[in-house]
Amino acid sequence: MTEAKTDDLEAEVRLTCRSAAAAAPVLARTEGRLRRAVLMELAARLEEADVGCRLLDANASDVAQGVATGMAPALLDRLRLDPDRVRALAAAVRAVADLPDPLGEVVRGWTRPDGLQLSQVRVPLGVVGFIYEARPNVTIDAAALCLRSGNALVLRGSGSALASNRALASVVREALAAVGLPEDLVVLIDRPEREAASILMRQTGLIDVLIPRGGAALIRRVIEEARVPVLETGVGVCHVLVDGSADPAMAEAIVLNAKTQRPGVCNAAETLLLAHDYPASEALLARLAAAGVTLLGCPRARALAERAGVPVAPADEETWDTEHLALVMGVRIIDDLDEALAHVARHGTRHSEAIVTQDQGHAERFLREVDAAAVYVNASTRFTDGGEFGFGAEVGISTQKLHARGPMGLRELTTVKTIGRGSGQVRT
Amino acid sequence: MTEAKTDDLEAEVRLTCRSAAAAAPVLARTEGRLRRAVLMELAARLEEADVGCRLLDANASDVAQGVATGMAPALLDRLRLDPDRVRALAAAVRAVADLPDPLGEVVRGWTRPDGLQLSQVRVPLGVVGFIYEARPNVTIDAAALCLRSGNALVLRGSGSALASNRALASVVREALAAVGLPEDLVVLIDRPEREAASILMRQTGLIDVLIPRGGAALIRRVIEEARVPVLETGVGVCHVLVDGSADPAMAEAIVLNAKTQRPGVCNAAETLLLAHDYPASEALLARLAAAGVTLLGCPRARALAERAGVPVAPADEETWDTEHLALVMGVRIIDDLDEALAHVARHGTRHSEAIVTQDQGHAERFLREVDAAAVYVNASTRFTDGGEFGFGAEVGISTQKLHARGPMGLRELTTVKTIGRGSGQVRT
Repeated sequence: MTEAKTDDLEAEVRLTCRSAAAAAPVLARTEGRLRRAVLMELAARLEEADVGCRLLDANASDVAQGVATGMAPALLDRLRLDPDRVRALAAAVRAVADLPDPLGEVVRGWTRPDGLQLSQVRVPLGVVGFIYEARPNVTIDAAALCLRSGNALVLRGSGSALASNRALASVVREALAAVGLPEDLVVLIDRPEREAASILMRQTGLIDVLIPRGGAALIRRVIEEARVPVLETGVGVCHVLVDGSADPAMAEAIVLNAKTQRPGVCNAAETLLLAHDYPASEALLARLAAAGVTLLGCPRARALAERAGVPVAPADEETWDTEHLALVMGVRIIDDLDEALAHVARHGTRHSEAIVTQDQGHAERFLREVDAAAVYVNASTRFTDGGEFGFGAEVGISTQKLHARGPMGLRELTTVKTIGRGSGQVRT
Repeated sequence: MTEAKTDDLEAEVRLTCRSAAAAAPVLARTEGRLRRAVLMELAARLEEADVGCRLLDANASDVAQGVATGMAPALLDRLRLDPDRVRALAAAVRAVADLPDPLGEVVRGWTRPDGLQLSQVRVPLGVVGFIYEARPNVTIDAAALCLRSGNALVLRGSGSALASNRALASVVREALAAVGLPEDLVVLIDRPEREAASILMRQTGLIDVLIPRGGAALIRRVIEEARVPVLETGVGVCHVLVDGSADPAMAEAIVLNAKTQRPGVCNAAETLLLAHDYPASEALLARLAAAGVTLLGCPRARALAERAGVPVAPADEETWDTEHLALVMGVRIIDDLDEALAHVARHGTRHSEAIVTQDQGHAERFLREVDAAAVYVNASTRFTDGGEFGFGAEVGISTQKLHARGPMGLRELTTVKTIGRGSGQVRT
């Protein structure tokens, strides 16, 4: 790319962000019913036949290009829209519309001895940047969540979904205009260049928070390049520890659920830690294999599985640090709780961790000592989810410790402002 | 610097951070009384005569070097320790020791219909990095705040205070050892190279949050270079808007307090916005000048001041964006509230903003529309402070929107962990 072109791109991305930043204060001052109304308007438009045609036409061109460039089938499936998926988008928007308004809540209030009344009220963050991969549904989900919580939104999707995202963003902007709000509350960076995302990540003062939605490579890139605050989401190398005292039926149910109920998500388990004295190990491994799980074991796990006639391939050091997102599971035999805790501390991504045990002391140690967003005793790791936690909608699952940890709902897209009402108070 | 030396430095900084990260879990599991005990021990040691001698000797060598290298008198004053200041450090440590324990609080708890009990409990962040300038007292303040809240601490002070910081950190480490805690809970990066700070800022996975304490240049550098999450603190270009309806006595008291009560701090006002129809402008400017404030005015303010015989130098565009931290104040005449709000939005740093007015509509618009950590009606900007807010101690004042906004107390050095207690629950 020539320098002039890079300058053009920089200016264009900056201008796009500026337009969202300029519109943001208008939304921040709206009442909840208007922010609900724009989502109801958006849902209705998504269900209109001609809008549906526009979206599917645009999506078809992205899919055709994906096929032509040899995109993997799983990615093509994520990219593809169909009438059912568009209807599901509309339903998701209505669900967000119906959530309680997160703004205006008085988080705390107090009066100083001198009579100055202070209160902390919940306000929007301002401008949220979303960087995501080839899932056009994120365009609509992000718009619904941000608008409901009073935030303007700058979208940067994958270049391979650009036509779809352009069409979806235009429907959002039409809904904004229809209720009398500025269209620029939702803007799309309409350039396919990889550098456009890097420029977005550097818009200090215009972007209040950047949320990456995607795989480990995207998250790493954002951490490396971003100069604006980031809400890190999603990578989960989660463990289930089956303690020696575990109830075998419970252990089997939890491990199967954590690994197989939906293997492609971040709260699915990737590694099974098996206490050496757990009496039903062979049955558990046989059950996993029967459920179609490819097992990668430490030497002791392989020896044990071999006796039971269960095929277990050798694990290597990478096994323990890999988010398989598939029916693949590492299995390691551990001698005691200390060894299990050390393994989790070393290889876990601080997402979700579970122990199956009937030993109260082991349960309490695990809860206390494991450093993760969510830690479970005798329950599946799969519960770490905005919906399951009762937050109604999910922005993502934070694996960092600042601002938000675990599932993020609408509240996590807000901040607070302290308001002081005085009668001439000065500091002495 | 040769490459080999940079590699050495990188390895040394990384090793220092690793030692803190390795010690952190021990502190996270302690009870509040042990975290209180280590601070009481530290305070007692700071008051011992031989410890005082060690500290003052070390500090004298830093000060001598500062004098030799022509350090500015204000910086030399910040660098200097004396017996009174050491006693004040001990008192500050005891005050933090006496604050309520922020850990273990159950932030929320609920039971799912399937019986899984979930609760969010407050836990430490883990390892906090402090980067600060030549104020050795920050070494002790940071240690007290971090240890009380269960966090390990990596200190990186100014090279010009290295001997002082080394001596202070060794007292903290001795106090840790005396109560049976790992010394490495508080470590100092004992290298003067500027690059050492840059390396610290990149320790993803070892440093959970980085807190810069210092001027605008330090904050900018951290935003540019950091790869770990940052809690941005401190720069305040704060405004007082004197509305046309303001009570003159109240306006004078608030503007004088905001500007002159302690001009060198971030919540002091830097700019006075004067409504064109405020009837007592000349008296207010005269009062500021009499209090020793150098005024920098827009052309209209200068004309008005000239009639009153008050000297006002011309402001330039830089005036409105400068944190003077001194008895200097920009003065601008504004025609209406819109113009004032636009000025604040453009030049404010989202720290603290105040309006003096008797007009309820103007007051409410100002509170609603100004985007800042703290917004006041008829009160001084100087109240934005952990002590004044009743938080007891202050880590800094956040001017960002994520995690913490405004004064940060012990609670802002914590995160949450969701604990699930089940009886075999799986997701369906």
